[in-house]
Amino acid sequence: MTQPDDQRWMALALSLGTRGLGQTWPNPAVGCVIVKDGRLLARGWTQAGGRPHAEQHALSQMPEGAARGATAYVTLEPCSHRGQTPPCASALIKVGLARVVVATGDPDPRVSGNGLAMLREAGIEVVTGVLEDDARRDQQGFLMRVTEGRPMVTLKLASSFDGRIATAKGESQWITGPQARLQVQALRASHDAVIVGGSTAREDLPSLTLRGMGDRRQPVRIAVSAGLNIPTHGPLAEDNSTAPVWLIHGPSAPQQARDFWIGRGATLFETPNGPSGLDLAHAMRALGQVGLTRILCEGGGSFAASLLAAEIVDHLVGFTAGVMLGAEGLPSLGRLDYPALADAPRFALIETRRIGEDVMHRWQRVAV
Amino acid sequence: MTQPDDQRWMALALSLGTRGLGQTWPNPAVGCVIVKDGRLLARGWTQAGGRPHAEQHALSQMPEGAARGATAYVTLEPCSHRGQTPPCASALIKVGLARVVVATGDPDPRVSGNGLAMLREAGIEVVTGVLEDDARRDQQGFLMRVTEGRPMVTLKLASSFDGRIATAKGESQWITGPQARLQVQALRASHDAVIVGGSTAREDLPSLTLRGMGDRRQPVRIAVSAGLNIPTHGPLAEDNSTAPVWLIHGPSAPQQARDFWIGRGATLFETPNGPSGLDLAHAMRALGQVGLTRILCEGGGSFAASLLAAEIVDHLVGFTAGVMLGAEGLPSLGRLDYPALADAPRFALIETRRIGEDVMHRWQRVAV
Repeated sequence: MTQPDDQRWMALALSLGTRGLGQTWPNPAVGCVIVKDGRLLARGWTQAGGRPHAEQHALSQMPEGAARGATAYVTLEPCSHRGQTPPCASALIKVGLARVVVATGDPDPRVSGNGLAMLREAGIEVVTGVLEDDARRDQQGFLMRVTEGRPMVTLKLASSFDGRIATAKGESQWITGPQARLQVQALRASHDAVIVGGSTAREDLPSLTLRGMGDRRQPVRIAVSAGLNIPTHGPLAEDNSTAPVWLIHGPSAPQQARDFWIGRGATLFETPNGPSGLDLAHAMRALGQVGLTRILCEGGGSFAASLLAAEIVDHLVGFTAGVMLGAEGLPSLGRLDYPALADAPRFALIETRRIGEDVMHRWQRVAV
Repeated sequence: MTQPDDQRWMALALSLGTRGLGQTWPNPAVGCVIVKDGRLLARGWTQAGGRPHAEQHALSQMPEGAARGATAYVTLEPCSHRGQTPPCASALIKVGLARVVVATGDPDPRVSGNGLAMLREAGIEVVTGVLEDDARRDQQGFLMRVTEGRPMVTLKLASSFDGRIATAKGESQWITGPQARLQVQALRASHDAVIVGGSTAREDLPSLTLRGMGDRRQPVRIAVSAGLNIPTHGPLAEDNSTAPVWLIHGPSAPQQARDFWIGRGATLFETPNGPSGLDLAHAMRALGQVGLTRILCEGGGSFAASLLAAEIVDHLVGFTAGVMLGAEGLPSLGRLDYPALADAPRFALIETRRIGEDVMHRWQRVAV
């Protein structure tokens, strides 16, 4: 049975859980609080790299015996399978909890109700579904990887008022302001990986690393080029000791290029060709298979269009600047070639707000 | 000397004044409240067509003698010149006011301090500059007409997420949702005139009338075409009894077309050619001369670009929809051909908010 303060404590657990977004893959970013007689005893969240889990992290902060008779609020069903450590469900039972409140179930077939069943069998009162929608929103990437086999994809587009990302001469520094650029770093920090198309990798020579965000796990840096035509100079080729480089290419990629990048420590993903260009849905499934849950696409325009056409964009984040570049400027998005307006992909607005001098607007895919 | 409640009463007067925006040209949209012993005695605002003035409108609601010893809050310096009616300054003196609080002076050379001087000479305490910035913002169109000789220009652009206003096939209904379209009607209602380029007039055959906004004055409908190449069928040619049609053309416009439109009751403005196309700054001065204070540009893309290039866009209102049309779609803005990013026109964000399914964002020109 739910109790009056359940939502309040779960909201705190959810807020703790989001600290791990982008940091915990292949594991979900879970939050946990332990409460007794209305008092907060411990807070936990999945640590960088995915371990310890949130429940273990919370329990580790409590003295022996302190959790007896307490309630744990966990944003995802506690795991029931033994991995590198004993399952969280066992740990919660062992410390003598009276009650466990869970936001949403874990669809992972190794858990999928088993965690809850273990708790109930041990005589613990189990309540589920508290702030479930919020939990599913936060854990969308993990849930999609388990249920659909691919990570959640966020597409970021920063453009002028008239939807251009550079002048005709290619000038693009700076369209949006410093605060919007900092917000892009925060977006990177909350995603497991950053992905760009081959043109962006060639023309911008981006580093794609996380800067100015403290001691966070670096996102995996992914570039997509059918022919593995990625510059062999520049940041992606230079140093991947802290931020891994993964490259997605087609069957025709020359062996010499493959050898070069393997020599530089990059991980290569060969992907079959689709009807137009690489089969991006296949590539995304491959990235899900190796554990990615949240991917941020940072361009360019034609790669973003390919992702949209393949229907694998789940979130949009737009930054709109108060500058006009004119029709001769570089468009933010390539050709889509939908037959009619009714076929064009639609997204529903989540929020809009000012970020420094610019407008940020966030949208999510409309289920069709 | 200001008193504690002055700002509060002036804020009310400002709010009343905005009711007249788009309704009062060539006169300013002024608000007025009359207060005695902390009690509101009357509220007034400039009525449709510009008369009665706000002060006369407020006084007309009060019984004889009730204003004796009261304070009037007026958003613009009361007029001192005799037009169709006696000046407002005289009217305020005649009813025996003790105090007049004014937000900002009227730069009209016929007033310009004379209104305040008249009041002071009559022994009335006069306070100025209360909420002056807000008043100047509301009355920007009127002030610009007096000081710069042209109306304030607002450019509205409603586009897809990627800055397109139609598909490659010209499909544009509907990109933004019904609430955004209603908001566009509200924008029309608060402007004296709506202006479009010749292509929009030819391709969209727009009516440009105010719909669903109650009994408001219809904005003047203006189309710009150097050769006066405006379709002789369609809404602009059909009925201008309630919403006037004004056409801006160049020296080369054929006499036959001029005769046709004059026959239909349109007002023609011949404008010299500029370095590229019509001299739009000249056209705007002509529109200021006949009394327009606020003009809303509703497209199309190349006309909007010409206005931007001529540096006569003061406000931007963007509506961004969560739909993607792709690079093959029609751009919201034509070519600007600025030499570098630093030369591109910049606007400062005023606000962003959700309007139904879409984002609305408002910006104002950055003074350079």
